[in-house]
Amino acid sequence: MPIAHDIAQSIEKSSWIRKMFEEGTKLKALYGAENVYDFTLGNPDVEPPEQFFDELKKLSDTPQKGIHGYMSNAGFPDVRKSIAEKVSREQSCIVSMDGIIMTCGAAGAMNVVLKTILDPGDQVIVPKPYFVEYGFYAKNHGGEMVLVDTNGDFSLNIENIEKAVTDKTRAIIINSPNNPTGAVYSEETIKSLADCIIKHSKKRSIYLISDEPYRDIVYNNKTVPGIFNYCPQSIIATSYSKSLSIPGERIGYCAVNPACKNFDTLMAGLILSNRILGYVNAPALMQRVVGSLNDVVVDITPYEKRKNLFVNGLKEAGYSFTEPDGAFYIFCKAPGGDDVAFVKHLQKYNILIVPGVGFGGPGYFRIAFCVSEESIKKALPIFKKALQEYNP
Amino acid sequence: MPIAHDIAQSIEKSSWIRKMFEEGTKLKALYGAENVYDFTLGNPDVEPPEQFFDELKKLSDTPQKGIHGYMSNAGFPDVRKSIAEKVSREQSCIVSMDGIIMTCGAAGAMNVVLKTILDPGDQVIVPKPYFVEYGFYAKNHGGEMVLVDTNGDFSLNIENIEKAVTDKTRAIIINSPNNPTGAVYSEETIKSLADCIIKHSKKRSIYLISDEPYRDIVYNNKTVPGIFNYCPQSIIATSYSKSLSIPGERIGYCAVNPACKNFDTLMAGLILSNRILGYVNAPALMQRVVGSLNDVVVDITPYEKRKNLFVNGLKEAGYSFTEPDGAFYIFCKAPGGDDVAFVKHLQKYNILIVPGVGFGGPGYFRIAFCVSEESIKKALPIFKKALQEYNP
Repeated sequence: MPIAHDIAQSIEKSSWIRKMFEEGTKLKALYGAENVYDFTLGNPDVEPPEQFFDELKKLSDTPQKGIHGYMSNAGFPDVRKSIAEKVSREQSCIVSMDGIIMTCGAAGAMNVVLKTILDPGDQVIVPKPYFVEYGFYAKNHGGEMVLVDTNGDFSLNIENIEKAVTDKTRAIIINSPNNPTGAVYSEETIKSLADCIIKHSKKRSIYLISDEPYRDIVYNNKTVPGIFNYCPQSIIATSYSKSLSIPGERIGYCAVNPACKNFDTLMAGLILSNRILGYVNAPALMQRVVGSLNDVVVDITPYEKRKNLFVNGLKEAGYSFTEPDGAFYIFCKAPGGDDVAFVKHLQKYNILIVPGVGFGGPGYFRIAFCVSEESIKKALPIFKKALQEYNP
Repeated sequence: MPIAHDIAQSIEKSSWIRKMFEEGTKLKALYGAENVYDFTLGNPDVEPPEQFFDELKKLSDTPQKGIHGYMSNAGFPDVRKSIAEKVSREQSCIVSMDGIIMTCGAAGAMNVVLKTILDPGDQVIVPKPYFVEYGFYAKNHGGEMVLVDTNGDFSLNIENIEKAVTDKTRAIIINSPNNPTGAVYSEETIKSLADCIIKHSKKRSIYLISDEPYRDIVYNNKTVPGIFNYCPQSIIATSYSKSLSIPGERIGYCAVNPACKNFDTLMAGLILSNRILGYVNAPALMQRVVGSLNDVVVDITPYEKRKNLFVNGLKEAGYSFTEPDGAFYIFCKAPGGDDVAFVKHLQKYNILIVPGVGFGGPGYFRIAFCVSEESIKKALPIFKKALQEYNP
């Protein structure tokens, strides 16, 4: 084998998803991209806010000495300080810069955290459906992902989580607003989860890891509750990919709860992991940019409009789903129950979506609404027609 | 243990190096930074070239749609194409964009490569003294680093490398120009190493990994020979950190030899690893910038001047070393043979350097000359005095 066994296997496993993407590319070549309705990608298409461009321009127009050089592995102190203020506000408790590490996006942050806390064979509990990369992230660092069912509306089922705790459990990952379901966990749910973690941490420390890049993308007057006041052993991993629409720039951070036991050791571990995993530091220029944009969020009106369009249109067409409170996905029940079959059926109508099985949620499909309203308006009657003509 | 055993151990092990840094910080606070001569850090202090700032300004002044968004995990196609042309020139063979993956610096590239090729227990041969992060990188992905001695002038000893090959060997890492020695390996050496790899690859594929971020920082009319025409199973991992003086921006790439067996599988593996390690993609804006700067290199005249200053001054003072042909380090014999003792001795004179033991080269110390000429001129008489007064 010219490459590692695990990697070869992962390429093999992901090949059917790739085949579906190739199918989509083929359709676009055949019928023209404008006649294919691609709802597969969670790639924010709303442009970054004006203030982002202004800040970038300011930094590029008047370069300061050393601005593109190395800094401490944890990031520029003034940027960490600024972000600590933002996190303090969001979490309603005082977080200092000592608890902030700048990272290459939330994916970088998640890997840094798991590298730091996982011993070989340690388990990480993940409610499903889930962001499929978590399995890789846990495995990268010798850990094992343990999946647990959520409730019918995709809210957390604390009983299921509690049942999954073993003497190998080291962390529980939550992702709210959730990809792929759009669920936002309530303050009450967070409190119950925290109680469960505190109870079981008496035997062995369990960390609550909150992966929250969609924190600012919420609808229906929802807000994402903080976790720091409820769960001392908690870490936030996040990025500016969605809140500023800059996913290609790979800029995010880890924030550690100041109440964390062995805070200093944990921070030293995270900083070391950030270095030795090869991240070294988060991209310098983007650190500076985001450090100045604490109060800036991308305009979410377009996302909310599209969400409403889809929610109303799909309901009217007869689809069944729980309305999302955040992120830009709808996780919809696959008519007939076979998600892969229904995804293939929709392909015949030039509609591309992702089967739920890819997120540990078979029987559902994910619609990503990072596309123009026009495209959604055109697609909705086709969704309806396809359902009427579906005969599994 | 609140963090992983391995991480706790690594923090512990690195704590004496940290203590030395803390000592330095204390000295600076006590005597003023301008009276402490800090030669510990390999942080390029020559400002990036004009063209870098121009390109950055151009991209920031007239933002294009989607320029900060996700792209294919391997990077922007036009950037990869541009870099393929650069690599083709450097390697004197035709490399296409299919062989290029944009990465978060050379450290990111090294981790992506090792993640892709190492099965648990696989060995990676590294000539010493060596860049100390390699040990972490191999271990991150279940591998084991096997160190081999170089010759007295730090050139590769192919016989030693050959003796270290086992049925577990998967890769050999070279780093030319070398950190910490400044050695540049000759074309003849590369040819002999390639012959050794080709011979042993008949039983089991061995990759030659060339970590070459210092390729453009060379002196004494040296050039860094290509490896692709000699060794089919070869991969380049590099960055723009030194050639453009932008180490904080984390931008680099992997280039895979088009003659590599199972080229497509290897590339698919590298692209997958780049994604699942959490890098996702290399920073988008910096991809665009470096893609336009194929012919641009930082002005190395200041480095060459400082190198000459140090070489002449240290010789005159009675120190013993092999003159570096590249990078910005001098790896100098520690008088008396005990590097840690001599480093502590120099601290008494407010001179900060790194003991060779940190690079697998005990008995030596490393001087990094990323500092002003003035600082070197002031420090040289002190180096002389310290040696005269040294009585181990």
